Amino acid sequence: MVAGPGSDASRWGCVGVVGVGLIGGSFAASVKELRLAGRVCGFAPDESNRLACELGLVDEACASLTELVSRADLLVLAAPVLQLPGVIAAIAPHLRPSTVVMDCASTKRSVIAAARQHLGASFARFVPAHPIAGSERFGPTAARIGLFRGARVILSPQPETEPSAVARVLATWQALGSRVSELDATGHDRLYAAVSHWPHAVAFALSASLARGELRDSALKAAGAGLKDTTRIAASSPALWAEILLDNRLEVLRSAAEFQAEIDRIIAALRAGDRPAIESALEFASRWRAQLEEPVSAPLQSVPDEPR
Amino acid sequence: MVAGPGSDASRWGCVGVVGVGLIGGSFAASVKELRLAGRVCGFAPDESNRLACELGLVDEACASLTELVSRADLLVLAAPVLQLPGVIAAIAPHLRPSTVVMDCASTKRSVIAAARQHLGASFARFVPAHPIAGSERFGPTAARIGLFRGARVILSPQPETEPSAVARVLATWQALGSRVSELDATGHDRLYAAVSHWPHAVAFALSASLARGELRDSALKAAGAGLKDTTRIAASSPALWAEILLDNRLEVLRSAAEFQAEIDRIIAALRAGDRPAIESALEFASRWRAQLEEPVSAPLQSVPDEPR
Repeated sequence: MVAGPGSDASRWGCVGVVGVGLIGGSFAASVKELRLAGRVCGFAPDESNRLACELGLVDEACASLTELVSRADLLVLAAPVLQLPGVIAAIAPHLRPSTVVMDCASTKRSVIAAARQHLGASFARFVPAHPIAGSERFGPTAARIGLFRGARVILSPQPETEPSAVARVLATWQALGSRVSELDATGHDRLYAAVSHWPHAVAFALSASLARGELRDSALKAAGAGLKDTTRIAASSPALWAEILLDNRLEVLRSAAEFQAEIDRIIAALRAGDRPAIESALEFASRWRAQLEEPVSAPLQSVPDEPR
Repeated sequence: MVAGPGSDASRWGCVGVVGVGLIGGSFAASVKELRLAGRVCGFAPDESNRLACELGLVDEACASLTELVSRADLLVLAAPVLQLPGVIAAIAPHLRPSTVVMDCASTKRSVIAAARQHLGASFARFVPAHPIAGSERFGPTAARIGLFRGARVILSPQPETEPSAVARVLATWQALGSRVSELDATGHDRLYAAVSHWPHAVAFALSASLARGELRDSALKAAGAGLKDTTRIAASSPALWAEILLDNRLEVLRSAAEFQAEIDRIIAALRAGDRPAIESALEFASRWRAQLEEPVSAPLQSVPDEPR
C-alpha cells in the first residue's frame, strides 16, 4: 500500500531538523502543518535557528545539536553538504537506538561514506535522500509549506539500511505529496551532475561573463526573458553551490567536458560560417529540449507500493 | 509629446507585413486590434501566409510580395534575418515614394547594409527596429495581440533616415505599448550578442550535451525547474537562431570567448579543489544576476518625447 497522510508509518514523536533553510525549514513546516509529528524541533548554528522559530517553521529551536539529537525520532540533516561529515560525526554519540536519520543533500556518495564511517550501528537507520526542490532562493525566509508537493525525491538506501527505516521515510515523503524514486548513489551523483550541478555552473559562468565585461550595466537593462531564465539559478547561494560542485566534482567535470564539446562544435561552425553544421547542432538540441516540457510521470525506478 | 493610441502619427492606411510568424503576426494582429491601420495585409512564401489569414492575424493574405509592397504605407519586414537582403532587393523596385519600411531583425548592421545597398532614395524611410519580444515559440500560431505591450523596442536610425519616418514608427510602437529606445547599430549588435544571441547558443549547447550522452532519457525524467529554465530558449527555432548567430557571428564569438574564460575559471578551481576561488566566482556572478530581477525602467538611451 502507498502510505498516505495519517498512516502510522509517516507519524513521528519528535522530528528534529538540522539546518532550517529552504529545504530543512520547508520540511519542518510541512510536517508541522500535516501533524506528522508530535513536535518539530530545529537547530542551526546561526541566526536562522531563532528565525525558523519566529517564522513558525518549527515548534522549538533547540539550544544545541546534542539537545536536538537526543530528542529526535526522525533526524533530518539539511545542512550544507560539506558540513554534513562534521554534523554526522557530532550526532553519532548521541543518537538514540531507534532514531531514523535522513539527509537531504544534492550529492549522495560522500554523505553515505561519512555516515558509514561515523554512525556505527545507527548506519542501518540512515536513509540517504535527495528532495529535488531547490530554487535560487535560500534560507528560512524562503521555506514554505508544500514545497515538496509534487516534487521528486530520490532515496538511495544501502545494503545495510533497514527496510523499516526506508519504509517510514518513504511514507513521510509520500505524506508530503512527493513522488519518491530509488536510485543508487553513483547513478544519482552522475545524473544530478548532468541535470543540475553543471547547469548551475553554466548559469553562473554566463552571468559572470556579463558581469565582468564592459556591458555589465547595459546588459542589465537590455536583458529579455531569455537571459533571465537562462541565468535564474545563478542567483542561488554561492556558498551552497560551491560546496555541491566541489563535493561532486569528478562527475561535474565529466558533464563539463561533454558541454565543452558542444560549445566547441558551435564555435567551430560559427567560425567556418557553416550554416548546415550550426543548424543541425541546434536542431539536435532543440528536439531534446522540446521533450522536457512533457508531463513527467514515470519514476526513475519504481518504488514498490508495498514498503520493503 | 508621446504619441498615444489614436494619434495621427501612429495611424496608417495599409500596413503590410512580410513574414507573419511570432513577431510579424503579433505586430499585424496588434495593429488590427488597435485599429492603427485601415487594412493589414500579410505575405509569406509558405503556408503561414494562409494560416495568418485563417487565424485572423491579418485582414488579407497577399498573393505575392510585389502586391503587398505596392499597397503598403508601412511595410514591416519580419522575415528571418538571412532572408532580409533578398527581401529588401525584391521590394526595392516596387516601393511607393511615401512608404515607410521597418525591419524587426535581432541584428542590425547587416540589415542596414542591405537596405543602404538596395533601397536607393527609399533608404531615407527605412527605420531599423528590433522588438525584444522573442520567445522559444515561433510561427503564426505563436503570434498574439499584446506581445509588444511593455516590451523594449530598439530603433537604430541612420544619418540618412528621415526624422518623420522615425517619429511615425516610434508612435506606432508606443501605441502598441512598447518602451522604445535608440541605440546605434554596432552597439546594438554587440549588446544583443551578449544578452541574447550567445545565451541562446549556451542553452542549445547545454541541451545538446544532455541529448548526446548516455543520460539523455533519465535526464528528461530527472530535470527540475532549474534545468528547464536554463534550457528553455533551446526549444527555439533552430533555423531562425542559426541565421541570427551566423549574421552576428563576430560579436557572438566575442561573447563566446568571454564566456569560455569564466567556464575555464570554474573548471580550474574545481580541478584544484579550490573552494575560495569557486565561491568567489559564483559570488561575483550571483551579485550581478540578483540585479536582473529589479524592475527595469531606464531606457538604454532616451528617446525624446518630442519626435525629432
